[in-house]
Amino acid sequence: MAKMKAIRKLGARAGMEVVDTDLPRIGPHDLLVRVRATSVCGTDLHIYKWDAWAQSRLKPPLTIGHECCGEVVEVGASVQGFKQGDYISAESHIPCGHCFQCRTGLQHICSNLSILGVDVNGCFADYVSIPAACAWQNDPSLPVEIGSILEPMGNAVYATLIEDVAGRSVAVFGCGPTGLFSCGVARAAGASLVIGIDLNPGRMELARKMGADHVIAGNDPELLDKIARLTGGLGIDVVLEMSGAPAAVKTGFRILTKGGRYTAFGLPSGPIELDFANDIIFKGARVLGINGREMFTTWYKMMGLLKSGRLKPDPVVTHKFRLEEFDKAFAAMQSNEVPCGKVVLLP
Amino acid sequence: MAKMKAIRKLGARAGMEVVDTDLPRIGPHDLLVRVRATSVCGTDLHIYKWDAWAQSRLKPPLTIGHECCGEVVEVGASVQGFKQGDYISAESHIPCGHCFQCRTGLQHICSNLSILGVDVNGCFADYVSIPAACAWQNDPSLPVEIGSILEPMGNAVYATLIEDVAGRSVAVFGCGPTGLFSCGVARAAGASLVIGIDLNPGRMELARKMGADHVIAGNDPELLDKIARLTGGLGIDVVLEMSGAPAAVKTGFRILTKGGRYTAFGLPSGPIELDFANDIIFKGARVLGINGREMFTTWYKMMGLLKSGRLKPDPVVTHKFRLEEFDKAFAAMQSNEVPCGKVVLLP
Amino acid sequence: MAKMKAIRKLGARAGMEVVDTDLPRIGPHDLLVRVRATSVCGTDLHIYKWDAWAQSRLKPPLTIGHECCGEVVEVGASVQGFKQGDYISAESHIPCGHCFQCRTGLQHICSNLSILGVDVNGCFADYVSIPAACAWQNDPSLPVEIGSILEPMGNAVYATLIEDVAGRSVAVFGCGPTGLFSCGVARAAGASLVIGIDLNPGRMELARKMGADHVIAGNDPELLDKIARLTGGLGIDVVLEMSGAPAAVKTGFRILTKGGRYTAFGLPSGPIELDFANDIIFKGARVLGINGREMFTTWYKMMGLLKSGRLKPDPVVTHKFRLEEFDKAFAAMQSNEVPCGKVVLLP
Amino acid sequence: MAKMKAIRKLGARAGMEVVDTDLPRIGPHDLLVRVRATSVCGTDLHIYKWDAWAQSRLKPPLTIGHECCGEVVEVGASVQGFKQGDYISAESHIPCGHCFQCRTGLQHICSNLSILGVDVNGCFADYVSIPAACAWQNDPSLPVEIGSILEPMGNAVYATLIEDVAGRSVAVFGCGPTGLFSCGVARAAGASLVIGIDLNPGRMELARKMGADHVIAGNDPELLDKIARLTGGLGIDVVLEMSGAPAAVKTGFRILTKGGRYTAFGLPSGPIELDFANDIIFKGARVLGINGREMFTTWYKMMGLLKSGRLKPDPVVTHKFRLEEFDKAFAAMQSNEVPCGKVVLLP
Repeated sequence: MAKMKAIRKLGARAGMEVVDTDLPRIGPHDLLVRVRATSVCGTDLHIYKWDAWAQSRLKPPLTIGHECCGEVVEVGASVQGFKQGDYISAESHIPCGHCFQCRTGLQHICSNLSILGVDVNGCFADYVSIPAACAWQNDPSLPVEIGSILEPMGNAVYATLIEDVAGRSVAVFGCGPTGLFSCGVARAAGASLVIGIDLNPGRMELARKMGADHVIAGNDPELLDKIARLTGGLGIDVVLEMSGAPAAVKTGFRILTKGGRYTAFGLPSGPIELDFANDIIFKGARVLGINGREMFTTWYKMMGLLKSGRLKPDPVVTHKFRLEEFDKAFAAMQSNEVPCGKVVLLP
Repeated sequence: MAKMKAIRKLGARAGMEVVDTDLPRIGPHDLLVRVRATSVCGTDLHIYKWDAWAQSRLKPPLTIGHECCGEVVEVGASVQGFKQGDYISAESHIPCGHCFQCRTGLQHICSNLSILGVDVNGCFADYVSIPAACAWQNDPSLPVEIGSILEPMGNAVYATLIEDVAGRSVAVFGCGPTGLFSCGVARAAGASLVIGIDLNPGRMELARKMGADHVIAGNDPELLDKIARLTGGLGIDVVLEMSGAPAAVKTGFRILTKGGRYTAFGLPSGPIELDFANDIIFKGARVLGINGREMFTTWYKMMGLLKSGRLKPDPVVTHKFRLEEFDKAFAAMQSNEVPCGKVVLLP
Repeated sequence: MAKMKAIRKLGARAGMEVVDTDLPRIGPHDLLVRVRATSVCGTDLHIYKWDAWAQSRLKPPLTIGHECCGEVVEVGASVQGFKQGDYISAESHIPCGHCFQCRTGLQHICSNLSILGVDVNGCFADYVSIPAACAWQNDPSLPVEIGSILEPMGNAVYATLIEDVAGRSVAVFGCGPTGLFSCGVARAAGASLVIGIDLNPGRMELARKMGADHVIAGNDPELLDKIARLTGGLGIDVVLEMSGAPAAVKTGFRILTKGGRYTAFGLPSGPIELDFANDIIFKGARVLGINGREMFTTWYKMMGLLKSGRLKPDPVVTHKFRLEEFDKAFAAMQSNEVPCGKVVLLP
Repeated sequence: MAKMKAIRKLGARAGMEVVDTDLPRIGPHDLLVRVRATSVCGTDLHIYKWDAWAQSRLKPPLTIGHECCGEVVEVGASVQGFKQGDYISAESHIPCGHCFQCRTGLQHICSNLSILGVDVNGCFADYVSIPAACAWQNDPSLPVEIGSILEPMGNAVYATLIEDVAGRSVAVFGCGPTGLFSCGVARAAGASLVIGIDLNPGRMELARKMGADHVIAGNDPELLDKIARLTGGLGIDVVLEMSGAPAAVKTGFRILTKGGRYTAFGLPSGPIELDFANDIIFKGARVLGINGREMFTTWYKMMGLLKSGRLKPDPVVTHKFRLEEFDKAFAAMQSNEVPCGKVVLLP
C-alpha cells in the first residue's frame, strides 16, 4: 500500500513526530487531497505542548493540522461538484449534515461537530481526506500560501463582518494572525477607524501593515484617553476581541459605545468576570460569539475581498518551513524576537 | 401657588414621605400631566431602602416614581402633537436629543440619559412634568392600571421581541413583573414553547396565567433534564434573563442552543463569572443587553399586541393602593405570602 | 418488477392518467417513500390544463405531484439521518447542493433547481423517490393530511415570517390555501391585525376561521377607507400578496405604510405595471420575493407553531379523495360552489 | 429690515430669478444659517424647467435649493445642541416629529414630510432657516464644496449600505452624481466588484475615478455577457438603480443573482412594467426603495467614510459658479459636452 509522510501525535505526551504512514482511505462523500501547503494554528501549539485542553480532547494516535490547500487526486463515489485536479482549500469544521444547526444554516456550529486534525486525521501530511462538503474550490492562480490560510482568515472575515463595519470605528484586541487579518478586513470593508491593540511591538507593526490606522499598546496607561480622542468621545462601535486575555475583555467592554457590538473570538483560558449591568445591559450591547466561519457565505465574501485586491493578506505570512521542520514552526510561534504571524509548512 | 401631594425622598436615608409641594413648572418642550395611576418598580424599592446603588445615584430631595399615565393639563409653548385633555403614558427614559445615540435611533440609551423619578422629579404625585418627547398617546378606552404599566411592559416587549420568537422556544428566568409580561409577549408572538422559571410557586402560577406552557422551579434538580425533554434535546432558542441571579445566568447559558439568543435584562448585584469559551464562543451565541424600550418602536408593537387582545396583562396587576399607601406597596413587594406582580398606586 | 399506481402526464396534452408503472429506483442519496397522503397545488392544475407555462416547462411522460408525506421504505446507501419506517414529508425544491445559492443558505432558490413532479417524477403515486436532503422527519402523531400540506404551509410560514409580524398589521391578498395559511400564521405570530382579502365569500369565511380579524371583499369600493379606519390611518405594515392578481398588487402597494414590507408570492400571469416612484421609492418600501421555503429554517418554525397549537391548519383541508379520483380534485379547485382550500389525495 | 439675495421661482413658469428679499425669520426650533455653499440637484432642474411634477408640487413664490452648508448666525429659543458660529450642513427632509414614521426611526420618510426648497423656502440664497432637527454639525476643516454635497452623497451612502456590500459585487446603473458617489461608497466599503453603467463616456470616466472597477455602456450589446464574465456567471449581488430609466430597471433585474438585492433610487418618469414572477418571486429578490437618508445614521456612516479618507468625493464636483450664475449651472447639467457631476454655487 502507498505510504506518505505525516506529522502525528502518537501518544499522550508533548511533541509530535514525523512518520511514514498509509494514505487515507476516503469514503463516498470525501475527496483525497494532495496537500500543497498547510499552516499552523494556535490550536496546534496547544496540541504540541499537550496542555489541559489537548489532553481532554485528543485521542492519539492522530495526524495533526487543519489549515491547508491542495490538489484533489481522488473523488468519492457520491461526490458532486468536484473532480480530479481541482485546487481546493479545506474548511476544518466537519458538520454532520442532519442536526438542527446543520439544517438551519449553522453547519459551522453543528451539534455533532468534528474538527480536522483534532477529532479526525488532519493535514500535516502529504495527503488528507476531506469531506466534499468541506471543500472550497480555488482559482488556480491563488498562491498556495494564501490557499492554506483561508481557514483562519475566514475566522477574521466572519468575526469582522458578522455585522456591517462600513463607516464605523473598529478596535482589534490581539494582533496574532486572526487579529491581523481582522485589521485588513475592517480596512477593506470601510471601517472609519481601525485600531490594533497588542503588547508586542513587532505585531503592532504588522497590524499597521495590514491596515490599522492606529496601534496602541495594550498596557499603555493612556489607552482609554487615546481611544476617547480618536473617537471624539463616542467610544468604539465594533470591538473585536481576538486575544482571550481577561484584561483585553475588560477594556474592550469599557471602550464600547452604547449600542455597540462586542465580538468574542479569542478563547480565554479560564472564567471571565463581567460587570453585566454596566458592560452589557445599561450599554444595550450586542455580544456575538464567533466560532469558525459561515459555510460558505464567509468564504464567498473572503474571495470577493481577495480577488478584488481590497484585502492583501501577505504580510501575515511571516514564516515558511518544510513540513518536517514543524519544530521550527512551533519555536517561531513561541519566540518574541521575530513577530510571528502565520507559519506555512510545505510538504 | 397651587400645591399637590407627592411621595418624596427628602434626605439621604431609608423611607419616603408624603408631602405637600408645589406643582411642577414645565418648560417649553414639556407637558404637565395629572397622574391617574402610577406603578411601583424594583428600582423604587432600592430607593426606598436606600441601598448602595440608590446612595450613589440619587440626590434628594426628589419626588420618586417613573411609571405612570395621566391627563395632559398644560402644554409647553414649543410642543407639537399633544393637547390638553390627551391621555398619555410616560416613557421614563429622558433623552438629550442630540447625542450620537439619540441621532441614530437609540434614544433609550442616550449618552446623557436622565430617568424620571431617579434623576428628575417623578410621578408618585398628583402632577408630573414630562417632556413631550417622552409622552405616548393612549386611546381613551385603555384602563389606567394598564396605562400605568406600559413602561415596564415595554421592557418585556423589547427584550422578548428584539428578534423574532415565532416558532422558537423561549425560557424566561425570573417571573417578577417583567418576566411575567415576557411570558405573555412570547405567547402572543407565537413562541413554540414558553417556559417560566422562578423559585416562588405563586409567581410560577402567575406565569402560567400569562401564557407559560410550562413552569419549572429554578432549584429543581431536574431542570436541565426537563428542558432537554421539552426541546427534544435541542436546547432553548431564546433565553430571557429577567432575574439578575447569578445561578440563573449560569443555567441560562447552559440550556441555550448553539446559535441561540441570550437576552440580558435582569441586573445582577455584582460581577458575573462567565465561561466565555463554552457559553458564548463555541456556542456562537448572541448576548443582547436590554435597557429600556425603543422609542417608540416598542410602544407601537406593544399597543398592537394589546389592542388586538393577543396580550392580556391583567393578571400581572396584583395589588392596588391609594398613592399615600406606598408603604403597603413596598411591603407587598417584599412579602412572599401573596405573589406580587405590579403594584398600582392611585393618586 | 414491482408495480405501483401513479397519476401521470403521458403526453403533451390536457388531462392526466392513472397508470400502473414501475416503482422508482433510488440513488445513493435518496429515500424511497410509500406515499400516505399527497395534496394538490395550483401548479398541478396548470399542468392538468396544459397551459402555456406547463407546455414550456414539462417534458412528459412524468408523474405529477409535489406535496406529500409518507413512510420511508428504502434508504439510499449514502444517506445519513434517516432509516426505514421514518415518517417524512417532502420538500419539493431539489437543490443541486454545490452552487453559490446552495452554499450560502439559499438552497430553496438553487441555481439548478429541480421541482418534484415538475422536473422529476412526483408523488401522485404509491411510491416516490425523494433526496434525503429534501426529507423532513415528522413526529408519528402528525395526521397524514397535515403531513401532506406542510410544503404549501411552509410557503405561508416563510412569506409571513420572513420579517417579524408581532404587533404589526398584516393584509393578506388572496385567500386560497397559501393565503389561508398566512392568516393563521400571522395570527399565531402576534400580528396586531390580520385582514383577509378575497372575492369569494366562502374563502373569506375560511379566512376568518384561520384567524383573520377582518375580511374584506377585494372589489369592495370602500376597501381603502376600511383599511384606513382599521389602521388608524397608518396603512398596513405587512402586505402579503398571495393572489397574483394585478388589481391586488396595485391595491397592496397603495395601502402599504411608508417603510412597510410588501411580500410577493402570488405569480401574476403577465407583466405587472408599477408606479415605482410612489409605490416603492418615496415609500421606502421593501419588496420581498418569496419562492419556496427556507431549508429547513422555515420547517422548524412551522413545526414550532404547529406542535404548540398556535397554528391550527385543519380548516384549510376542505376536500379529501382517493388518489385515483384526481379529476374530482381538479373539479373542486375550479368550482366556486364549495370554497376550496387544500385537496388531499389518499393513495 | 435686512435684505439678502435669493434665487426664487416667482410664478408658475419656467426659469428662476435673482431677487433681493427679506432674511428668513426663524422659529424657536430653527437655526438661521449663512449659506457658504449650495449645490444643484436634478430636482432643481425639474423646477427650473417647470415640468409636470414641478407644476403639481410647487407653490410659488419660493426660494429654491435644498443642498447646502453654512454658518449658524442665529439660534432659535428652544434649540439645544447648536450655537452661533457652528458650521452645519442641512438635511433637506423636514420631518414632523410626531407621526408613526418619525417615532419609529423613519423620520426621512415622515408621513407629513416637507422638503427644503420644494415645500418651504430653500437655500439658493445668502441665508436659510433650517430646523435644528435637520442640522448636521461639521468639522471646521471640511471644505464647503463637500459640506454642500453631503445631502446627495447621503442618498448614495444610504442606498449602497442599506445592507452590507463587503465582498459582494455591485452594479450601479446611472453615473449621475448619486451613481458616482455610490461607486465611491461601494469601493470604500469593500465591494468585490464595482461596475458603473451609463451612456455618457465622460460620466463613465468619472465612475472609474470614483472607484468603479469596470464601466460598461448601458447600450453595449454585450453587457449581459460582460457581466456574466465578470461575476463568473453568478450575476450581481447588489444592483443600485440610480437612473430611473426603464431599460436600466429591466436590465438590473435581469443581471441580479438569485437572492440578491435590487435597490431602487432613480425616479422613473412613468410606470414601469415588471416581470414579477421571474424578476422578483422566483429570484427571491429583495427590492428596497430609497428616499432620502437615515437621520442621522447615514450621516455618521458618511462622515466615517470621509474623515478616514476611504471615500474621496472630489471628482464628482465638476463645476463651481457664483450663486447668481445659476443659469450656467442648469446649462451645464443639460450639456453633454463636459460630463456634469455636482454643480456647486457660492453665494
